[in-house]
Amino acid sequence: MDIIKPRIMKGTRDFLPDDMYLRQEVIRIITDHFVRYGFQPLATPAMEYFDVLTGKYGDEGEGLIFDLAYKGGREVALKYDLTVPMCRVIAQYKDKIVMPFKRYQIQPVWRAEKPQKGRLREFFQCDADVVGVADVSADAEIIALITDIMTALGFENAVTQINHRGLLTGLMEKLGIAEERAPQAMRILDKLDKVGEDAVRAEYADAGFEKTAVDDLFSITTAAGNVEDDIAAMTGELKSNDRARESLEELTRLFGYLDEMGVSSDRAAFSPRLARGLAYYTGPVHETVVETPKVGSLSGGGRYDELIGIFSGVDVPATGMALGLERIIQVMAELKMMEGAGERIEVLVAPFGQDEVGLALKLARELRQSGVNTDVYATGDRLKKKFKYADRIGAQKVIVVAPDEIARGVVKVKDMQTGEEKEAAMDKLVDMV
Amino acid sequence: MDIIKPRIMKGTRDFLPDDMYLRQEVIRIITDHFVRYGFQPLATPAMEYFDVLTGKYGDEGEGLIFDLAYKGGREVALKYDLTVPMCRVIAQYKDKIVMPFKRYQIQPVWRAEKPQKGRLREFFQCDADVVGVADVSADAEIIALITDIMTALGFENAVTQINHRGLLTGLMEKLGIAEERAPQAMRILDKLDKVGEDAVRAEYADAGFEKTAVDDLFSITTAAGNVEDDIAAMTGELKSNDRARESLEELTRLFGYLDEMGVSSDRAAFSPRLARGLAYYTGPVHETVVETPKVGSLSGGGRYDELIGIFSGVDVPATGMALGLERIIQVMAELKMMEGAGERIEVLVAPFGQDEVGLALKLARELRQSGVNTDVYATGDRLKKKFKYADRIGAQKVIVVAPDEIARGVVKVKDMQTGEEKEAAMDKLVDMV
Repeated sequence: MDIIKPRIMKGTRDFLPDDMYLRQEVIRIITDHFVRYGFQPLATPAMEYFDVLTGKYGDEGEGLIFDLAYKGGREVALKYDLTVPMCRVIAQYKDKIVMPFKRYQIQPVWRAEKPQKGRLREFFQCDADVVGVADVSADAEIIALITDIMTALGFENAVTQINHRGLLTGLMEKLGIAEERAPQAMRILDKLDKVGEDAVRAEYADAGFEKTAVDDLFSITTAAGNVEDDIAAMTGELKSNDRARESLEELTRLFGYLDEMGVSSDRAAFSPRLARGLAYYTGPVHETVVETPKVGSLSGGGRYDELIGIFSGVDVPATGMALGLERIIQVMAELKMMEGAGERIEVLVAPFGQDEVGLALKLARELRQSGVNTDVYATGDRLKKKFKYADRIGAQKVIVVAPDEIARGVVKVKDMQTGEEKEAAMDKLVDMV
Repeated sequence: MDIIKPRIMKGTRDFLPDDMYLRQEVIRIITDHFVRYGFQPLATPAMEYFDVLTGKYGDEGEGLIFDLAYKGGREVALKYDLTVPMCRVIAQYKDKIVMPFKRYQIQPVWRAEKPQKGRLREFFQCDADVVGVADVSADAEIIALITDIMTALGFENAVTQINHRGLLTGLMEKLGIAEERAPQAMRILDKLDKVGEDAVRAEYADAGFEKTAVDDLFSITTAAGNVEDDIAAMTGELKSNDRARESLEELTRLFGYLDEMGVSSDRAAFSPRLARGLAYYTGPVHETVVETPKVGSLSGGGRYDELIGIFSGVDVPATGMALGLERIIQVMAELKMMEGAGERIEVLVAPFGQDEVGLALKLARELRQSGVNTDVYATGDRLKKKFKYADRIGAQKVIVVAPDEIARGVVKVKDMQTGEEKEAAMDKLVDMV
C-alpha cells in the first residue's frame, strides 16, 4: 500500500509535549485568575448556524468563516470567536442564567485566513465577560483582572490602554465628520499604533477627510499622561457634545474604581487615540501592550451593550476581554519564561532486562499510587537506551531494577542531575523518592 | 432588525457553568492519572486532510466525516477520532519523537451522525497510548491506568474485560471460517453484550455461517472465571493453531503483569468472546464495564501494530485506550457523584448601594490576591437581589459593605449555610475569610 503523506493544513498546528507543557501552564494560570475573580466556565460547540455567526460580523467577517460542506454548505460553520456564541447562549437560556452573568471561556476558534506568517486558521481564544452590568464597575473589574493575569504570567510592565468609544464618536461629531463616515475614521485611527501618525494622516487625506478636522482630532486627543488632567482638558474642549461629556464622566469613574482597587496608573492608562477595530463596541475599550518585547497587544476588549440584542431582541449590557493567548505563549516561549513549567515526569523505573519488567511495573504502580509522576520503560532494551530516554523526557530520577540488587531487596536510584547513585530498600522506595 | 433565533445544531451541546464544574473535575482527575503514569500531552488540529482521515477508516467511517466546504470539499475535514491524528504525528515528527512515546490527548472530535438520542456529533475523546513497545507490558500498564482512573472517579467495581484479537483470528481459522469472512464473524460477535447469545446465533445463521462452527465458537470461548484455568482449557483446544497459541501465551504474560501490579482479577478479567468492533486491532483488546448502572462500556482499547505504518511506511507497535468521557460524565451526573465538585466561588462582596461600589471592588481585589475565589456584585441594585444571586452562584459567604459599618471600619460577613452574621474589621478581612 502507498503511504499517506503525514501533513496538516497551513495555519494549523500540532502541539508536541514540549509545546504543551508551557501551554497548559499558561492556561492554568489564566483559568485560576478567572475563577479567583468569580467568573464561571462556559463551553459552546465548534459548529454554529451560519446566520448566528454572520449576524454580528456581516460583511466584516463572512469571508473568514470556515463553512461546512454539510447539507451543501451555508448551513453550519466553525465558530469565529467566543463572543457571538456567548451572546447566543445568553438569549437561548435566559431562564437558566442569572444576571449578572460572569463567564469565562477558553476554546479554539477558526478563521479561513490566507496562510501566511502569524495568521493562524485555528487558535485558542480566552475570554472573560460580565453580562448584565451597565456600570463601568464591571469594566474596572475586567481591567484589574487583566493586570493581575499579566503580572502572574511575568509581564509586570504590561500597560492596559483605555479609551471610550463614545468619546471618539462624540469627538467625530464635534469635528463635523459625518455619522456614516465615523466608522471609517475609527478604522483608520485604529492603525495608529502599527503605522504611526504620518501614515494615518496620509490615509485620512487620501480618504478625503478635512485636514483641519484631522489636525483637531490629533490635538484634542493629545494626552500628557496624567489621567485627571487629560480628562479635564478634553472635557474643556468637548463640553458642548453630550456624548463625549458623558463618556468622559464614565472614564473618570472607571479610573476612580481602578485607583481604589490599587491598579496603578502605570498599569492602566488613558489613551484617547485608541479606537479598537470592531464595530460593535459602545463604551470603554482597552488593549494591553508591553514595551519589550514589542509584540502588539496581549489582550483587547471593551463594552458592547447592543450585541446580545441581535439574539434576544432586548439589549443587555455586556463588557469583556479576550487574551491573545497564542501571542502570549509565543512570546513566553521565545523569552524562555517559565521554562520547565508544567507537570513533568519525576521518576523513570528501568528494569535491567525482560525478567525484571514485572517487578518494575509493580514498583512503578506503588510510586504512582503514592502521588509520584512515574514512567516505566517496561521492555528488555539495554539500560543505556533507557537512560537516554530518561534524559529526553526530563526524569529527575531513574530507578534501576536489576537482579543483583533484587536479591538483596534493594534497587538503585540515580539522580539525573547530580549523577549520584544510592540504594533504596524496595519496601521503602516511596519514602525515599 | 429581526432577531436571529438562538439555537445550535442537534447532536452538539452548550455546557453552562453547572455542567462545566463536574466536566472540568472529571477531566482533571483523568489528566492527573495520565501524568502520574508518565504520559505526555499532545494536541492536534480540528482539521485534517481528507486522505489522512480516510486512510484508516475507508468505507467504515467515511460517511461520518464532517467535510469542510473549503476548496470545494473533500480536501479537509474535522477529525473523527484521536488515534489517526496521533499516528500521523508519529510519522510526521519522527526526528523529534523519542520512542517509546507515551502520549495522552483530550480533545473534541466530530462525527456526522444522524441526530438521535445518545448519538453526539461533537464529543470529547480522552486517549492514552504507548507507541514503540511491542511487549504486552504496555498493555498491562494501560489496563492498570484504566483501573486506577475508574477507582478515582468512584467506579470501584468497574471491570476491564480483556481478550486477544489474535486468539479470535486463530479460533476462526481453526473453526474453518474463511479468512475473508473472519472480520464479519468478529463484527457479529461484537454485538454479544448488547443483543445476547440467541440474537448473535441467529445472525450467524442468517449470514450463512455453519452451525457446528458457531457451536464450537461458543463452547471453546466459555470462560469459567479463573484466568489460568480458562487459558489452559483454551490452549488445550487450540494448540494446533500457532496464532491462537501465541496469543494465549501473550495473555498469560499480560495477566501475570497485572497480578504483579496488584490489579486484582475482579477488576481485570479474561473475556474470550470480546471482539471490539474496529478492524485495526492486532493484539490484546479490552473494554471496561460497570454492572450498575448498566450503561455500556466506560473505556475501550487495544493493540494496533499496523496502523502507524499507513503514514510512516514502517510498522510501529502501539497500544492504547479511549475513555468514554461523555458517558462517564453523564452517568456521574445522573448518580449525583461528586456533586458540588469543581472550583467554585467562595465569597460574594455586596455593596449596600452605588456609593459603596468602589470600596467593594477594593475589598474583593484584596481577597482575590490572597487566594480567595471572590465575586463582587458591583452595582447599586438592592441587597435582596444580591443575596439571591449569592445563593444562585453557591457563594459560601456574603460580605456586605454598608455605610454604618464602614464608618466603624468594619463589614458584615454572612455565612450562607448557617445564616450566621459576624462583623469583621476591613483591614483583617482576609484573615477572617
